[in-house]
Amino acid sequence: MPRVNVDVMLKHEILDPQGQAVERALPTMGFEGVAEVRIGKHIELVIDDDVADAEGLAEAVADKLLANPVIEAYTVTVVDG
Amino acid sequence: MPRVNVDVMLKHEILDPQGQAVERALPTMGFEGVAEVRIGKHIELVIDDDVADAEGLAEAVADKLLANPVIEAYTVTVVDG
Amino acid sequence: MPRVNVDVMLKHEILDPQGQAVERALPTMGFEGVAEVRIGKHIELVIDDDVADAEGLAEAVADKLLANPVIEAYTVTVVDG
Amino acid sequence: MPRVNVDVMLKHEILDPQGQAVERALPTMGFEGVAEVRIGKHIELVIDDDVADAEGLAEAVADKLLANPVIEAYTVTVVDG
Repeated sequence: MPRVNVDVMLKHEILDPQGQAVERALPTMGFEGVAEVRIGKHIELVIDDDVADAEGLAEAVADKLLANPVIEAYTVTVVDG
Repeated sequence: MPRVNVDVMLKHEILDPQGQAVERALPTMGFEGVAEVRIGKHIELVIDDDVADAEGLAEAVADKLLANPVIEAYTVTVVDG
Repeated sequence: MPRVNVDVMLKHEILDPQGQAVERALPTMGFEGVAEVRIGKHIELVIDDDVADAEGLAEAVADKLLANPVIEAYTVTVVDG
Repeated sequence: MPRVNVDVMLKHEILDPQGQAVERALPTMGFEGVAEVRIGKHIELVIDDDVADAEGLAEAVADKLLANPVIEAYTVTVVDG
């Protein structure tokens, strides 16, 4: 069955306090060299074989139920056609 | 600068109530054909150019600060070397 | 209409990497004196007036759809009867 | 040691797709009578005894690191003085 991944991230103009917390914690743990951290959602969808357009279905689902268009942007990737 | 993505998902033997809620909501919104939904985290790291092993650094960060090894598994993808 | 809050936290024996990241970031930002940080979910439910047992309904919903009993525990609070 | 809870919710004018997914899933699982669901974050802070103003410290932390003021609002509750 097709698998489609949807990654949902805050738009770049919107602060990501959670990502910033990880960014700031890293040097205190001995990790140097990470310039930026942003945290979002990763959603994995398994689509039925009889769906003609798995990518289009995933995009429609992302639009309606996974992402908040005011503050978030998403990318859709078919990983297993 | 290299960019590395880390996707963190609950291990498959662990229930994902959030994913199930989306799965069950879909037919009520007219979306048919999604067999399974699982929801995790997607983290984007920008790594400094002078880091020799960007992927290794991201894995170490994931181990320590992004994923909970008891319940979660992660994958690391270098998207821009 | 009654309002019920459900707070869902990882069980205490399970590491909370997200909380730890915030905990470690605080001193680097000049905040001293926070001994521990744990991060969970807060869900607000508005219940119809004709539901006899709003708290019981919220508990049932938490059991089935909001919390993962293997790794999480929840508390239910009626804030507006 | 004082304990302070911080609840972070999306502002009411901003859609909450995750809450809507739970809201829509409930009737399909036999749960009737939930009019609205909104999902946010619940953060528990343990504060050192020698901090004079635990609530003020928690508010400052929420402002800087827990909430995104563009899209979220938070409430602070001292649960154990």
